[in-house]
Amino acid sequence: MVASEVRALFAVASRPEIVSLAGGMPNVAALPLDQLGDLVKDVVSEEGTAALQYGSAQGDPVLREQICDYMTLEGIQAVPDDVIVTVGSQQALDLITRVFVDPGDIVLTEAPTYVTAINTFAAFQADIRHVGMDDEGVDTDELDHALTEAAKAGRTVKFFYTIPNFQNPAGITMSAERRERVMEVCRRHDVLIVEDNPYGLLRYDGEQKPTLYSQGDGNVIYLGSLSKTLSPGLRIGWALAPSAVRAKLVLAAESAMLSHSTFNQFVVRRYLETFPWREQIKTFNSMYTERRDALLGALNTMMPVGCTWTRPEGGFFVWATLPEGIDAKAMLPRAVNHRVAYVPGTGFFADGRGRDSMRLSFCYPTPEQIREGVRRLVGAIEGEIDLRDTFGPAMATTTEGSQAPTPDLP
Amino acid sequence: MVASEVRALFAVASRPEIVSLAGGMPNVAALPLDQLGDLVKDVVSEEGTAALQYGSAQGDPVLREQICDYMTLEGIQAVPDDVIVTVGSQQALDLITRVFVDPGDIVLTEAPTYVTAINTFAAFQADIRHVGMDDEGVDTDELDHALTEAAKAGRTVKFFYTIPNFQNPAGITMSAERRERVMEVCRRHDVLIVEDNPYGLLRYDGEQKPTLYSQGDGNVIYLGSLSKTLSPGLRIGWALAPSAVRAKLVLAAESAMLSHSTFNQFVVRRYLETFPWREQIKTFNSMYTERRDALLGALNTMMPVGCTWTRPEGGFFVWATLPEGIDAKAMLPRAVNHRVAYVPGTGFFADGRGRDSMRLSFCYPTPEQIREGVRRLVGAIEGEIDLRDTFGPAMATTTEGSQAPTPDLP
Repeated sequence: MVASEVRALFAVASRPEIVSLAGGMPNVAALPLDQLGDLVKDVVSEEGTAALQYGSAQGDPVLREQICDYMTLEGIQAVPDDVIVTVGSQQALDLITRVFVDPGDIVLTEAPTYVTAINTFAAFQADIRHVGMDDEGVDTDELDHALTEAAKAGRTVKFFYTIPNFQNPAGITMSAERRERVMEVCRRHDVLIVEDNPYGLLRYDGEQKPTLYSQGDGNVIYLGSLSKTLSPGLRIGWALAPSAVRAKLVLAAESAMLSHSTFNQFVVRRYLETFPWREQIKTFNSMYTERRDALLGALNTMMPVGCTWTRPEGGFFVWATLPEGIDAKAMLPRAVNHRVAYVPGTGFFADGRGRDSMRLSFCYPTPEQIREGVRRLVGAIEGEIDLRDTFGPAMATTTEGSQAPTPDLP
Repeated sequence: MVASEVRALFAVASRPEIVSLAGGMPNVAALPLDQLGDLVKDVVSEEGTAALQYGSAQGDPVLREQICDYMTLEGIQAVPDDVIVTVGSQQALDLITRVFVDPGDIVLTEAPTYVTAINTFAAFQADIRHVGMDDEGVDTDELDHALTEAAKAGRTVKFFYTIPNFQNPAGITMSAERRERVMEVCRRHDVLIVEDNPYGLLRYDGEQKPTLYSQGDGNVIYLGSLSKTLSPGLRIGWALAPSAVRAKLVLAAESAMLSHSTFNQFVVRRYLETFPWREQIKTFNSMYTERRDALLGALNTMMPVGCTWTRPEGGFFVWATLPEGIDAKAMLPRAVNHRVAYVPGTGFFADGRGRDSMRLSFCYPTPEQIREGVRRLVGAIEGEIDLRDTFGPAMATTTEGSQAPTPDLP
């Protein structure tokens, strides 16, 4: 159960003696809390009768207009009527799956991909198929092949789910050429694309790439979020969808929750209207740049021979692969003994792959903690290498699958 | 499409010249907004780093403990571990339906019942069957019969959905004897009960009745909400469920939204901890008592012979039935011409019944507006009676079903 693994990890990560490279929690401590306190006070005292009332299932119209402005920073031209505000982009993903997926339908995703997307697709009994990635993003030949084979077998592929920027968990950004190729392949096979872009504005170097949405013609649903650029605790995400799809999503949202929190929407409305939020994103970016550099620098200096890892241009995550015969999932309890935590790679695949890999996140710990975390992680890996060299790789993988101790055991 | 009817009505209700007896919006203007403004400010400035962060899918543990305290006012003894915090009780209903209902499964409800419950059950392709009510609540002989017939036909009944207190839309409260009988029937047929109780503490006279949950033995899921006793804009509802069910609901919630808004949960946490919220409920109750009395008084004084209506002991709604041959749905556009709005009864049935009925709500307009609204409504009804008496009942029902003009047409 991948969800329970992640929950167990959150339990570990909260212990003060552990350096957690596991969670994907943004560093909200970088927000000016006193100013935000004044802002929320004004929302209640000045607009309380509206802010504390029910709202519409599609979301507040003013906020939807602001979201369109926000998306222009990603090069997207959109109208408020095509936007639906959701409880984080997670709810958008859930509503899309609910509207599109019948049991047994194929959903294609990158390999690896976002944990909770896997859970959501599985909850609606999708047949989740992974498509490999390289440094430029998803392998489009493999994508083409998967779509061709599905068509030959008479199977329905409902959509291809992708996180093109600073992918969670791989940290890979799809190149501009690859994006064009994805669009070409999906258009040729007439398959919908779900583009999940929560990290897009958290870019630390390299050039911004055009969204798939902006290259599409009604065949892309775009998911955005303020969870990483403002706060996940407000749960403001959205879907931008062609109007026929959007109408179905609004009905599903009404069934799912009647309406999102008007209060939170009014808070975000005022934030986007009155706050220097572009500057706030720059503040986040310089902080996260430093943390990413701390992680990459420490990996570069300390990691044993045979380990490889990705070099993200933004976002929160680095994907590391261990030397042959070392099992990241089996190692986790021993890493926790070394007082460091990460997410084993297996959680990011629907098919049991990923034992040799792990996701390392640099968003939450300080640069000093990150360096100390890598030091401890290297200690754990070196211990595994010693075990492997002494007893052979079988020894390191005796506790497999659901038998593996959860990371919150001592 | 019942949802679109309700949406259209909200559009009408917002026009200032219309007295709306349609919407079920609580009167949040009765809240002390300045004090609440200070409260939310303190949440952000004092606890912002936690309040603006991700939370758990089950909901904040402190809030779940407070919810257990809150439910003691309804006579419920519960532990926080059995509570899951949801985006209004609507989300709880959605998650329950998602977890339990396979396409074609029977769901039993009272007749009439809550509009969006019908939509949610329909979204998961339930076979919705209504069970009639009288002044003491659901007809338990009919319930028994429906369950017996389903069993004979080899059909699965997933649950019986009921709103025992001040039912939406009927305004009826299930008597204590009837509750015992419902428990007996459902236990005998081994069928789960979903008890929806958003209005329970908004009682204006009569004696509190024991909840079904408190008479159950793991066969009742209880839904609660602060939408009516505090604010719907915060979207804080919950389910109280036996632990095996609760675990499934938490997984479904994680898939549906990752976690609810931590911010809103912290706001409500502080509200329940620091605010004289029992006094606030008394304030609401004396305001709503006056409004209910204004509605019942006006109906009593003005309604034409042949009209009947319920006399709620609490909640927001009165259910009125028109004289023979008068169609509430067909009348609505003419009522809007009289500058009054209501919800036609058809929206509260899955099977097209309810043409002779309407839901009148007294929560939002002032007593003066309510009296004026009834005056206008009576004008509309008298017009229909004249039409009927002149041309016969067929004339009043020429615009039927989906051909009926939506209420936001002029």
